[in-house]
Amino acid sequence: MNSRPKVIIIGAGFAGLYAAQELAKSDVDVLLIDRNNFHTFTPLLYQVATCALDPSSIAYPVRTIFRTQESISFLLGDVTTIDYEQKSVTVETQSGEQQHHYDYLLLATGSITNYFGQEAIEKHAFGLKDLDDAIKLRHHILKLFELAAWSTDTAERDALTTLVVVGGGPTGLETAGALYELYNHVLKQEYNTVEPKMRARVILLEAMDNLLAVYPERLQRAAKKQLESLGVEVMLNAKVSDVTPNQVVLADGRIIHSHTLVWSAGVQASPIVKMLDVETVRGGRLPVLPTMQVAEREGIYAAGDLTYLEDSDGKPYPQLIPVAKQQGILAAKNMLRQQRGETLGEFSYSDRGIMATIGRSRAVAWLFYRVQLTGFLAWLAWLFLHLVVLMGFRNRLSVFISWVWNYLTYDRSVRLILNNEEQGGERNDEADQQAA
Amino acid sequence: MNSRPKVIIIGAGFAGLYAAQELAKSDVDVLLIDRNNFHTFTPLLYQVATCALDPSSIAYPVRTIFRTQESISFLLGDVTTIDYEQKSVTVETQSGEQQHHYDYLLLATGSITNYFGQEAIEKHAFGLKDLDDAIKLRHHILKLFELAAWSTDTAERDALTTLVVVGGGPTGLETAGALYELYNHVLKQEYNTVEPKMRARVILLEAMDNLLAVYPERLQRAAKKQLESLGVEVMLNAKVSDVTPNQVVLADGRIIHSHTLVWSAGVQASPIVKMLDVETVRGGRLPVLPTMQVAEREGIYAAGDLTYLEDSDGKPYPQLIPVAKQQGILAAKNMLRQQRGETLGEFSYSDRGIMATIGRSRAVAWLFYRVQLTGFLAWLAWLFLHLVVLMGFRNRLSVFISWVWNYLTYDRSVRLILNNEEQGGERNDEADQQAA
Repeated sequence: MNSRPKVIIIGAGFAGLYAAQELAKSDVDVLLIDRNNFHTFTPLLYQVATCALDPSSIAYPVRTIFRTQESISFLLGDVTTIDYEQKSVTVETQSGEQQHHYDYLLLATGSITNYFGQEAIEKHAFGLKDLDDAIKLRHHILKLFELAAWSTDTAERDALTTLVVVGGGPTGLETAGALYELYNHVLKQEYNTVEPKMRARVILLEAMDNLLAVYPERLQRAAKKQLESLGVEVMLNAKVSDVTPNQVVLADGRIIHSHTLVWSAGVQASPIVKMLDVETVRGGRLPVLPTMQVAEREGIYAAGDLTYLEDSDGKPYPQLIPVAKQQGILAAKNMLRQQRGETLGEFSYSDRGIMATIGRSRAVAWLFYRVQLTGFLAWLAWLFLHLVVLMGFRNRLSVFISWVWNYLTYDRSVRLILNNEEQGGERNDEADQQAA
Repeated sequence: MNSRPKVIIIGAGFAGLYAAQELAKSDVDVLLIDRNNFHTFTPLLYQVATCALDPSSIAYPVRTIFRTQESISFLLGDVTTIDYEQKSVTVETQSGEQQHHYDYLLLATGSITNYFGQEAIEKHAFGLKDLDDAIKLRHHILKLFELAAWSTDTAERDALTTLVVVGGGPTGLETAGALYELYNHVLKQEYNTVEPKMRARVILLEAMDNLLAVYPERLQRAAKKQLESLGVEVMLNAKVSDVTPNQVVLADGRIIHSHTLVWSAGVQASPIVKMLDVETVRGGRLPVLPTMQVAEREGIYAAGDLTYLEDSDGKPYPQLIPVAKQQGILAAKNMLRQQRGETLGEFSYSDRGIMATIGRSRAVAWLFYRVQLTGFLAWLAWLFLHLVVLMGFRNRLSVFISWVWNYLTYDRSVRLILNNEEQGGERNDEADQQAA
């Protein structure tokens, strides 16, 4: 059995998971490494942050996903070194370092928040890239509203209840919309301990002169209109120049008094790509061949957000889940082809369109880049798509029930501030002191 | 409106919550103070610890419970001083200290784990008294099994997968049973990365010579038999004399190699009772009059686990939820009677019996101290009772769905290790180092 190849996949996101599922069908041993013991359904992170879903509704244990596939093992840990000459990977685990040899390696650790080198923003902003981010943001907002409920200083109270979201992409829109709904349907009623009544603001900042840059103009306008009809204030051409614990400063000098800045204005490739000593391109992305191979790095493939690959028109493929999935599957197939000495396939993206949701019954969708949907119909399309792709039947069922329940009642039951001291993080402590 | 009395309730457990609900019907202002922003349905904490339920399924935001009751306000914070002469309470909040005056005060902060002064146990054991405890234990067990999955040293692996529960009361039985089911139906299948196959042990230690001390002998025997038929090892007359990060030492010299000791061998009154400068009795409990008043402390009532009160036979009322509820309601009614100058009522416990669950389809119940049920019928009674009393319809629905789903599939989906560094706690780190 010396010929049974060993594949290591780093990252249990969409690219890594689909690659592993593809490889499970064949005669290879797969070691899947991740720093979490679960896969995260990232498109719904904002729903965890806004108290609509439990963390476990959008996260699924990796070992459960592969419980019947004996050829796939899982290791919980951080990769610290990739020795691409010796073909081995070093992993920092709870019990120390482990070294694992590979015949084929797939890099699929995705992307992280990009603060574009602005340290003040990085220090004070909340990202929304993983489950810890989402839980931190949830705790932060709930703690601010507990403060606001007892604050008799109107200016202070307004600052505590002003939530700023930066970035006019789908994540920014979804987050801003969900935050306003959380306030409007839940917090407004429950956090009015003192007079005068609380008024919260949710402000969406976009540096360019339109939202949803890659969408047709009609959908851009519809998205803005829907956000505003919901209650979100949209500020275009609004570039953040500085952030402190209690204010957001714009490039034109305007100041927004707020303790909460959610940053969804950009991503950069996971820093793991640096371990390959390859020159990276825009946003730290790793250039790959159309076969998903990394040039001059024998046996190494990459897929998903951390890769850079252009289509036949010279346009880079976007950092989206469908791209990651399809690249992961192609990488897996190509490893098997390479092993058998066959010709490798090249990536071509099967693209069904793009969509963004804005809140209850509000969304925009551009199906197959032909059909433009707005409002309730677009929202239904979004709902259906997300339910279909959610991993695991149990999760799908529970997410669906939570959604229907929320839709009917505006209930947001997942409003727990857990483990005050330990889950706070730097930003919380500072904001709290400022509010004091 | 000078005559509208102000009631402060400390603690949003069962006693405090039921008192507040009672007071909401009358012409009084209530301030409810708790260190968490949610009420916890404590009987199901062990299900959170064993990955069967989400934290939010057994916790409900206090503000939601009272969203329609304008006379009830909520304050998130820790009470640091009770000035019973001046009738005021000092609360440490996120934004500093707040002082609140009361006409009537209800102490209802319940109980905490009792380690009986054994520092080694306190340092290394896991309690199971609040949601943070439950989440810590969940993370700890999952991390140990991740280690065990890769351990090639059989002795080390056995220690990692040996879970010890101390205490033969209902909580100990439930926890031991649920831990074994977690292993037997989930972890066993998913954590077998290396040969030989993993064998976990769950050991229940009880210092006395029988389980469930206050139950009839027939139910005691049935409980032990059901636990053993499940797979739990029951050790009677087994007193813990020392604990280290990797072993449990019994009084007779026996040593159990284990990294996990769950301590459910006793509770003591919440330390808040010391603030009243009243002499406490067994387990630090605060003696109360049958009216739930604290003698010589004008306007102060107490209810629930932290109180000490004897029935007409001179037997102390047990520290159980139904007692807490009924005492909370009586305390609230007596405050109103005192305000109106009426005669106060005295506590008499309406007792419907006791029950303990042991696992899927296994339980014992002693209904009205007449009907003795064991096995599936007792389990159905337990299930029904808990569903009926769970707070809030949404939670009830979601808990019910999770249960039915778990029952049919043995699924345990809530197996997330979140926020590795921040939620670890001392015990985790030590265990991990030992295992290294």
